[in-house]
Amino acid sequence: MVVDGERLNRRIGELAVIGGNASGGVTRLAYSEADRQACLWIEEVMRAAGLEVHVDAAGNRVGRRAGREGGLPPIVMGSHIDSVAGGGRYDGPVGSLAAVEVAQSLGEQGVTTRHPLEVIIFQNEEYGHVGSRALAGDLSEADLRVVNGSGRTRSEGITFLGGDPSKLDSVRRHPGDVAAFLEVHIEQGEILTSTGVDIGVVDGIAGVQRWKMEVQGRANHAGATPMDRRQDALLAASRFVEAVNRVVTSRSGRQVGTVGAFQVFPGAPDIVPGRVELSLDIRDMDEDRIGAFFLELEREAGRIGRRTGTAFSFTRYHVHEPVETHLVIREVFEEAARELGLTSRRLLSGAGHDAQTIGKIAPVGLVFIPSVGGVSHSAEEYSRPEDVRNGAAVLLRSVLKLDAMTLTYASPRPPAPPARTRRRTRYRRRSRRGG
Amino acid sequence: MVVDGERLNRRIGELAVIGGNASGGVTRLAYSEADRQACLWIEEVMRAAGLEVHVDAAGNRVGRRAGREGGLPPIVMGSHIDSVAGGGRYDGPVGSLAAVEVAQSLGEQGVTTRHPLEVIIFQNEEYGHVGSRALAGDLSEADLRVVNGSGRTRSEGITFLGGDPSKLDSVRRHPGDVAAFLEVHIEQGEILTSTGVDIGVVDGIAGVQRWKMEVQGRANHAGATPMDRRQDALLAASRFVEAVNRVVTSRSGRQVGTVGAFQVFPGAPDIVPGRVELSLDIRDMDEDRIGAFFLELEREAGRIGRRTGTAFSFTRYHVHEPVETHLVIREVFEEAARELGLTSRRLLSGAGHDAQTIGKIAPVGLVFIPSVGGVSHSAEEYSRPEDVRNGAAVLLRSVLKLDAMTLTYASPRPPAPPARTRRRTRYRRRSRRGG
Repeated sequence: MVVDGERLNRRIGELAVIGGNASGGVTRLAYSEADRQACLWIEEVMRAAGLEVHVDAAGNRVGRRAGREGGLPPIVMGSHIDSVAGGGRYDGPVGSLAAVEVAQSLGEQGVTTRHPLEVIIFQNEEYGHVGSRALAGDLSEADLRVVNGSGRTRSEGITFLGGDPSKLDSVRRHPGDVAAFLEVHIEQGEILTSTGVDIGVVDGIAGVQRWKMEVQGRANHAGATPMDRRQDALLAASRFVEAVNRVVTSRSGRQVGTVGAFQVFPGAPDIVPGRVELSLDIRDMDEDRIGAFFLELEREAGRIGRRTGTAFSFTRYHVHEPVETHLVIREVFEEAARELGLTSRRLLSGAGHDAQTIGKIAPVGLVFIPSVGGVSHSAEEYSRPEDVRNGAAVLLRSVLKLDAMTLTYASPRPPAPPARTRRRTRYRRRSRRGG
Repeated sequence: MVVDGERLNRRIGELAVIGGNASGGVTRLAYSEADRQACLWIEEVMRAAGLEVHVDAAGNRVGRRAGREGGLPPIVMGSHIDSVAGGGRYDGPVGSLAAVEVAQSLGEQGVTTRHPLEVIIFQNEEYGHVGSRALAGDLSEADLRVVNGSGRTRSEGITFLGGDPSKLDSVRRHPGDVAAFLEVHIEQGEILTSTGVDIGVVDGIAGVQRWKMEVQGRANHAGATPMDRRQDALLAASRFVEAVNRVVTSRSGRQVGTVGAFQVFPGAPDIVPGRVELSLDIRDMDEDRIGAFFLELEREAGRIGRRTGTAFSFTRYHVHEPVETHLVIREVFEEAARELGLTSRRLLSGAGHDAQTIGKIAPVGLVFIPSVGGVSHSAEEYSRPEDVRNGAAVLLRSVLKLDAMTLTYASPRPPAPPARTRRRTRYRRRSRRGG
């Protein structure tokens, strides 16, 4: 049983033309015209691969091939084809077209699986996992009103892609509805590429929590304000950035903490900064640990605020629960890689993927292939053709192995309580001006 | 001998209409139409005050009243009337109109001084002390090409205000040409306002050196990049901000160090920052100490760069030499205040003023009046009418005292060597990827 690596890589090149730019990258923002064109293109490719294709109410492309036995839930493969602004040609397309390739190869080689096979191209992975969240029943009315870079709300985007936002209930899958979900993706880090390993078998996808923060101090003339009378918001925010690094690296584990957005006001060379707006992003496989890191950082912020005469506030606005991949699927991937003569290693995914969302309702597996230099979300993103083929080959073998099994699925623990809305820690420095 | 405080405060209110905005502040950027209107307005006021007015080749307004004795250099008073964007109505106008008021009061009370009196309204103080630098012979061809917020180069601005940039040599004054230069200004800090003292007698104006800095790291996916593989430019820059505070406050003295401009790239919550652009501003009465602080910070940047895998670069782009005010003028101010029943104290100016520039060629004195809350460069800037009047009253009394003296003037030491152009400290972290 083989896959046609040449065909697969050729299709990745063809898809890169849609929304492609001069630098070799692509901009296919979800719900943009380029995104719609890409959806129509892949529908044709899926049909050519022998799949029966329909657009579900969420605007996902779903291709199906019947199985040998009645009454079995499908084995589902898939990924996404939308991109970030100025993204690359591999993030999403590799897994989407590898899924199509596996279905096509099986058909061409006369194999009919016991389970039905499904290929799903999820819409809008990059800005909210919208298509996969529809399957998991995890889209609220408020979620549908969010506008992305295309200028369309998600609700308008679903209609634009051929779905019907009023019928999202029809796409919802429940535990038991999906035998297994398998995704291939480029690694958006450099573990594989720097260690020369062919295949990454993902143990789990880290949970993410994200806060908007503000540090309020007092803007003042840089020359006329002595050091001990300043309420320097940048100094306070800088100490917080340092605290994030110190606290997050103070324990063993694979957690990460990042301050990525950071704006200083008024931002002039001769004015002591009065305000900083920043982001805090914490990721870990364990939500409780994320919570514990945050509490420690909140305490640090309090201490920093007292010493600098500034006030910190936090608003949590983004929560993605961690998901473990299915133990058996991991072993199946490893076995498949071994049989193909490929090296593999376990790793965690710090980046979110559709598999993370589907993991709430089904056993999931996620395979990474190397991305040279660990580059992603960039025109420089590049995966070697042999690595792309390897990913598809592991996927095909794994589908056949899983087709012979029935996986048990234990729902993850109930979702975390709703995000606290606005949490504010306010401290005022004691006046030093008494004398 | 008295001043007309009511007339003085009324004129400050009238001037605030030109370029005034709804919030009570003013925007009179140098070389803007509002600036030109204000120049024409103050010319009229100066004439009404009995001064003989001309526009010098640098675009300054110069008003003159002859003295009793031939051959004596003038006692010069003055300040500026241009403002920052969204500035207040007191920064500049107080000293400009107090100078006019003193000349007018003396005339009205039949006093002719031994020395000629001059009132100079310097153009473009806020963005480079351009008018006063013309008198000090400190404007290069390159200086004249600088564009400010008005959209005009300084050269175009000089023409716009009625000057002639090809004849700047004609305005130059040399040591001996000016008997004394006296300026009244609002304190742009809160020492007077918080201690309830009426008059600040400025010992000296701190030197300023300013650098543009860049921290170059590597942008990376926040989820997929483990903590020990990051080259986080924001973490490095944050440690530098902390180092500025630590190093500058580690010695006694009135030095200040500020990071005010700070931009993070790409600046997204889920991307480890790859680059930060920031400013560094150090002020002290002693240039050698500024140099020593900088060298220590450069070493700190090297250490931080080695530990974080980032590279720091520094470009010095702004140097203002420190200036001491004249010892005798300080004592004259104090005596004048005492005779008027006003309290006074010595202080340093961290902000630059035209007196700083003129101090290179003449004995200078600088008086501060309180600005409520230490606010400046803001629509909220406010000085009480009695404080404004007090400033003018001290100025008048001091002119009369100085008129009876001949001050000795010692040129400050030769200017510092030209700014080093680009200084780069580059370190690469040893690879941790050996395994």
